[in-house]
Amino acid sequence: MKKCLLLAILLNFNFILVAQTYKADSAMLKRISNHVLTNYQCYNDLHDLCKNIGHRISGSPQAEEAVKWGKEVMDKLGCDRVFLQEVMVPHWVRGEAKGSILTSKGKRMSVEISSLGNAIGTGAKGITAPLIKINHIDDLKRMNPADVKGKIVFYNFKFDQTNVNTFESYGPCVYYRWGAPSEAAKLGAIGVVIRSVSSAFDDKPHTGSISYDKKYPSIPAVAISNLDADRLEQLMEVERNLSFDMTTTCQMLPDVLSYNVVGEIRGSEHPEEIICFGGHLDSWDIGEGAHDDGAGVVQAIEVLRTFKQLGIRPKRTIRAILFMNEENGLRGAKRYAELAEQNNEYHILAIESDAGGATPFGFSMTMEKEKREKVKLWSNLLLPYGLYSFDREGGGADVGPLNRKFKTPVMELMPDSQRYFDMHHSANDVFENVHRRELSLGAIAMTQMVYLVSMYGL
Amino acid sequence: MKKCLLLAILLNFNFILVAQTYKADSAMLKRISNHVLTNYQCYNDLHDLCKNIGHRISGSPQAEEAVKWGKEVMDKLGCDRVFLQEVMVPHWVRGEAKGSILTSKGKRMSVEISSLGNAIGTGAKGITAPLIKINHIDDLKRMNPADVKGKIVFYNFKFDQTNVNTFESYGPCVYYRWGAPSEAAKLGAIGVVIRSVSSAFDDKPHTGSISYDKKYPSIPAVAISNLDADRLEQLMEVERNLSFDMTTTCQMLPDVLSYNVVGEIRGSEHPEEIICFGGHLDSWDIGEGAHDDGAGVVQAIEVLRTFKQLGIRPKRTIRAILFMNEENGLRGAKRYAELAEQNNEYHILAIESDAGGATPFGFSMTMEKEKREKVKLWSNLLLPYGLYSFDREGGGADVGPLNRKFKTPVMELMPDSQRYFDMHHSANDVFENVHRRELSLGAIAMTQMVYLVSMYGL
Repeated sequence: MKKCLLLAILLNFNFILVAQTYKADSAMLKRISNHVLTNYQCYNDLHDLCKNIGHRISGSPQAEEAVKWGKEVMDKLGCDRVFLQEVMVPHWVRGEAKGSILTSKGKRMSVEISSLGNAIGTGAKGITAPLIKINHIDDLKRMNPADVKGKIVFYNFKFDQTNVNTFESYGPCVYYRWGAPSEAAKLGAIGVVIRSVSSAFDDKPHTGSISYDKKYPSIPAVAISNLDADRLEQLMEVERNLSFDMTTTCQMLPDVLSYNVVGEIRGSEHPEEIICFGGHLDSWDIGEGAHDDGAGVVQAIEVLRTFKQLGIRPKRTIRAILFMNEENGLRGAKRYAELAEQNNEYHILAIESDAGGATPFGFSMTMEKEKREKVKLWSNLLLPYGLYSFDREGGGADVGPLNRKFKTPVMELMPDSQRYFDMHHSANDVFENVHRRELSLGAIAMTQMVYLVSMYGL
Repeated sequence: MKKCLLLAILLNFNFILVAQTYKADSAMLKRISNHVLTNYQCYNDLHDLCKNIGHRISGSPQAEEAVKWGKEVMDKLGCDRVFLQEVMVPHWVRGEAKGSILTSKGKRMSVEISSLGNAIGTGAKGITAPLIKINHIDDLKRMNPADVKGKIVFYNFKFDQTNVNTFESYGPCVYYRWGAPSEAAKLGAIGVVIRSVSSAFDDKPHTGSISYDKKYPSIPAVAISNLDADRLEQLMEVERNLSFDMTTTCQMLPDVLSYNVVGEIRGSEHPEEIICFGGHLDSWDIGEGAHDDGAGVVQAIEVLRTFKQLGIRPKRTIRAILFMNEENGLRGAKRYAELAEQNNEYHILAIESDAGGATPFGFSMTMEKEKREKVKLWSNLLLPYGLYSFDREGGGADVGPLNRKFKTPVMELMPDSQRYFDMHHSANDVFENVHRRELSLGAIAMTQMVYLVSMYGL
């Protein structure tokens, strides 16, 4: 009986403790939210990055400026250390791009084209060849190489509008930008035009990386807007003998020294356990890289700022990383993982924000089941901030190398994806298209997750 | 033993039936979603309403056009009936509005003002009076009437940025537009200037209804933008003797005949059970009433269209209502409830969409617990569409009269609220600020909910 009573008292005591902890954590998460929503310094940072530096592809003077900017902003926060990690990055330059459609009767219609990132150029003389339309890669694979040889392939694969989460449509589409050009080269095509990988019905071409299969010749590849692709598709219905003419002077120059930028607050109890989080500092060389990934960059900085300004001392080390070269090489992320290995660092979690600055609804995760269950125990604390989804698999490109090398648990912030691929990799990815409160809610979600893991581990 | 076996078989059979029903419902919800996301006819409707008619305050020629438009659009859908409900509505006209701040040294600074809806005007001569700043209504209530008499009161109450759901900030703020002007009149003030009820840091004044307490004189009342309110606040720190000069020629004209527009598909099994859903056709007379409430109007129409185009025959009667006069009278909603009483109609559910056209995250509800629990049984079916929140109380202004008269269960679609009050009641509430996919997801959520209730009742 006495034992039972003791047990009851202990259980009750434990219950009170748990309830008190819950209340304290809940209050802290609200404090974090209030701070960011009333100061929205990440929004001001994004304005600064987008308007005073602008787009910043790896190897460009703007990327160099962005590195300095990132270090300066974090230096001002009073972190325990802010440092750069050297990394050699590709240096691709876009040059000029001119495209037009030619009818069999000699009529020329100019069309705005955007070279795919890392693509080779046509040279100043350009290329002109008959155009063949491919709606699906299987159609190309069934073709007689003689019918492809010397031609320009128009990949007309369309963004699936039916997925509620547009990232599910991005995957299948992106193949036509990334891998399919080499499939055309394999059959003898001399150039590729793709329908933009985008959910928008507009006249902006969307760029993004190509990956040449070295077994086949590298051929020039460009994107046209969805509206131009629609027009071209209609034209090809009535006129079978169209040619495409393109002149692109993009080229890959020798690698350039660049940097990841890292800011850190050391843990008070378990400094050897590192929680890192970040976005990528480089962007495509059109637009301003506002959603992709200025948002992730300023949100990562905001996590550190909020800890410092609210005087929160994390028990574990927290580290913001502004990765270099996510867009066309992933060199920064690979370098970060190499250095983590060299320095015997132990990362208990790596969080990425690289899906835009819209209102977040949860985190995708790749980690052991027990760890995911531990995270899900916090879901009631996070629900008031609109975060309800913790079941999807995911992580993100920049935290990938850590996960592959060390099996580091990884997460990615999931913002509402309805508008993202309208702007992604296009001239429309500008500051004006990011909303102050939406961006701030992403920074809040990141800070809250980092706070909980920094207190309770993973 | 035999009984047990029989029971087991029956239970198992039941389980299979439930699982099959779930699968069929899940497939139907996906069919609805795919249809709307690939056709987005509601987005085209919104374009038409905003660009070809524009803003449409009750009593205006545009409101009359909007009634015709709504009927024509629904007539084309092949509903079982489309009809108008006569209702007399207030006819307030804005006229001109000019405002300026006067310093004691005679300097005049003009400031953009917007008359509050239903407010009286100053007359062509205008009014000029010393300005007193009130941050909170309690401060006014503590004042000596002699210090308020003959003055213009500047209500400087600020939108609370810390609420994740901005509707929670709207409530306290809106009092300063709706009720507080009469509190100033009670103490002898001759005019009111309010800080706009808005989350935006911009230079647009936001209008909205005033409600005069008939015990006190009706006095002119206008809104200034948040940025102008900030400037005025700063100015009043350094200069105590400011005056405000305003000339507004707004006025209330005699009531005008207008209409609710109703479209209906009769139920195949329980036609007497009505599920109604809608938004309001009238809007404020600045901007285009795109989010408020063009979105709700075109979503309600889209529910009917989707049923018709997918060939779904509802078991219960479903009815889209385009309410007239939500903004400055609620006459249409009251009339609808009166007519429901006269016609002995039985509404099992009334759903409103009047919180903007952004990505929805759930439905707020006011209904008996058992009914709410029944709705929540469908939450797993709705989760793939981002709908996770079914616990909030709510309903909306236009379904209010039904709820008060008959205790009709009511719901309101809850879209993400981050951007809504930036645009609400201002010149920024235009078509360009509504996103095709976000608007469509709202229409999908409405259609799915109406589908489930039309099949299973409530």
